[in-house]
Amino acid sequence: MTTWLEKEIAEQPEVLRRLVEEERPHIAAIARAIRDVQPRYAMIVARGTSDNAARYAQYTLGALAGLAVGLAAPSLTTVYHRTPRLDGALVIGISQSGRSIEPARVLEEAHARGAVMTLSITNDAGSPLAQIADHHIPLNAGPERSLAATKTYTAQLLTLALLAVELSSGIEWDDALQRVPEWMGTTLEMNENTRAAAARYTFMSHCVTLARGFNYCTGFELALKLKELTYVVAEAYSSADFHHGPKAIVQPGFPLIAIAPQGEGLRTMADSLQTFHDSGADLTIISNDPETLSGARLALPIPAGIPEWLTPIVAIAPGQLLALGLSEARGIDVDSPRGLHKVTLTE
Amino acid sequence: MTTWLEKEIAEQPEVLRRLVEEERPHIAAIARAIRDVQPRYAMIVARGTSDNAARYAQYTLGALAGLAVGLAAPSLTTVYHRTPRLDGALVIGISQSGRSIEPARVLEEAHARGAVMTLSITNDAGSPLAQIADHHIPLNAGPERSLAATKTYTAQLLTLALLAVELSSGIEWDDALQRVPEWMGTTLEMNENTRAAAARYTFMSHCVTLARGFNYCTGFELALKLKELTYVVAEAYSSADFHHGPKAIVQPGFPLIAIAPQGEGLRTMADSLQTFHDSGADLTIISNDPETLSGARLALPIPAGIPEWLTPIVAIAPGQLLALGLSEARGIDVDSPRGLHKVTLTE
Repeated sequence: MTTWLEKEIAEQPEVLRRLVEEERPHIAAIARAIRDVQPRYAMIVARGTSDNAARYAQYTLGALAGLAVGLAAPSLTTVYHRTPRLDGALVIGISQSGRSIEPARVLEEAHARGAVMTLSITNDAGSPLAQIADHHIPLNAGPERSLAATKTYTAQLLTLALLAVELSSGIEWDDALQRVPEWMGTTLEMNENTRAAAARYTFMSHCVTLARGFNYCTGFELALKLKELTYVVAEAYSSADFHHGPKAIVQPGFPLIAIAPQGEGLRTMADSLQTFHDSGADLTIISNDPETLSGARLALPIPAGIPEWLTPIVAIAPGQLLALGLSEARGIDVDSPRGLHKVTLTE
Repeated sequence: MTTWLEKEIAEQPEVLRRLVEEERPHIAAIARAIRDVQPRYAMIVARGTSDNAARYAQYTLGALAGLAVGLAAPSLTTVYHRTPRLDGALVIGISQSGRSIEPARVLEEAHARGAVMTLSITNDAGSPLAQIADHHIPLNAGPERSLAATKTYTAQLLTLALLAVELSSGIEWDDALQRVPEWMGTTLEMNENTRAAAARYTFMSHCVTLARGFNYCTGFELALKLKELTYVVAEAYSSADFHHGPKAIVQPGFPLIAIAPQGEGLRTMADSLQTFHDSGADLTIISNDPETLSGARLALPIPAGIPEWLTPIVAIAPGQLLALGLSEARGIDVDSPRGLHKVTLTE
């Protein structure tokens, strides 16, 4: 029986193609509107998987569009009723369902606190969050039935990448953007054995994911999928933070999953990865760098030639397949793991 | 033999007293200078323990002073050489040693990118970070010789609390601020058995810390102390995020450490804690709420009557003693755990 989860993982090339081909003019128009109001900075409100998309926005809007991005502390609004001033801010709410309570509450207050614009990104144009915002970008990913988000996450990342390019003055990014759907398809093909290979982790109780820079989000999202779908205690770390203390937990055999595609992020991680390799850690590596992959007990490849800033969109896919396979190996109902609800109703 | 770690934990009431009594006029002057330049928002650059102080700042400067605070992605500067625009920003670097590379690099670029002021908070007035910033607040905590930061962390929190009060227009916070050193002393007395009680966790391989709102930072800092000092895989969660998916990992006997002092944060957590209790989780609770503490396998009390926004300064202390005791129970050199360096030299 095919599960929703594997079906939705497989749909990703098509979902991304639709976004690039159909949503681009709309995103370009929103980018012009954003430029008109000249935001000083952006504040993003999101939870769970969407919060990992927000982490991607912090790097991508920062590096491509020069826009400083902060992640909101939404409980200032929902729990303490003390929303800070938002003078000059672009406030962005991200939620797959558009029915998460926190982003809606913060966006409702944003203009009164000085925000120059509100924007929402959801997979349901009829949702409250889509209605509340000044502008809305629909993911058009089709209904997501599995409780674990996959296609809506990569659609959120590509939406943010498109927005960053439209907010930047550069057109040199275009060719690469067009190829993202194809790269996703190739990644899934390259990882056709990853689901079965996941069986080796059946008795893993905990692990750490490591990444840096643009793929910081990928580490968090992979850790979240592992927790949601396999009940493994998986913790995401910036490799810089990890190096600064927590690496003390690494013993021989300690499971580390590194996301390290070619680029500046890998340059800063290479020495650490070698050290962990030498100390006998159990290394799983997602990368397109042959030498880096050669140090892994399990190598999860992605295509060569992807600019680093776009790698997060495809680098999560091997992780999704890993979590899917491990969930099956552990006998868990992947479409309805215990404890998971589709909509965040937390205040 | 007395270790530096236990000595520095014990020094905290005196360190906090010195801050309140001697540094207040200087912080008030800096607050006036900040108000003069009218920052739109604050961006904080920090790593490790200091990053947890930054999390406290996000809530405290937000709630008391109405100042939106974002945590920087410093690798945009140090790895990608693409510092975003910082128009109207107050950029704050926090580092115990003042010799961490990332905050210094970001602060050096801040004015050129539009920041209206830079501020650093360190324990060494002669350090590079102290010299680079427009303004500097010294912690005056005395040398910290243990590799795990304790007294400098609580001094950072109190410094940020003092700054938040001086930036707000309210004087109603003053009485409580004056009592923080005394509350820290009482907390250490109330937890004189915590160090020995930590032996029960000797064979714990992993755990999750849970907190919400102001004490979000406490969950992260306790998890960091456990990882640094005891090599336990400890992951910090906002109780709201945890509820939204990762709670699937909770089986009977699963170790959860909740930081839940009386206040709005506890109000949002109470139902979750009851659920975890009912499902047989192994609950350790830091609180001053008798009913909440009654549900814990190990109850770690803090004094009654502390306003929620100040509880993080003392609520970490039982956690420090827990990490100290567990480190001893596991036969680790608490002053020099493996893998830990005092200064973050990460780019």
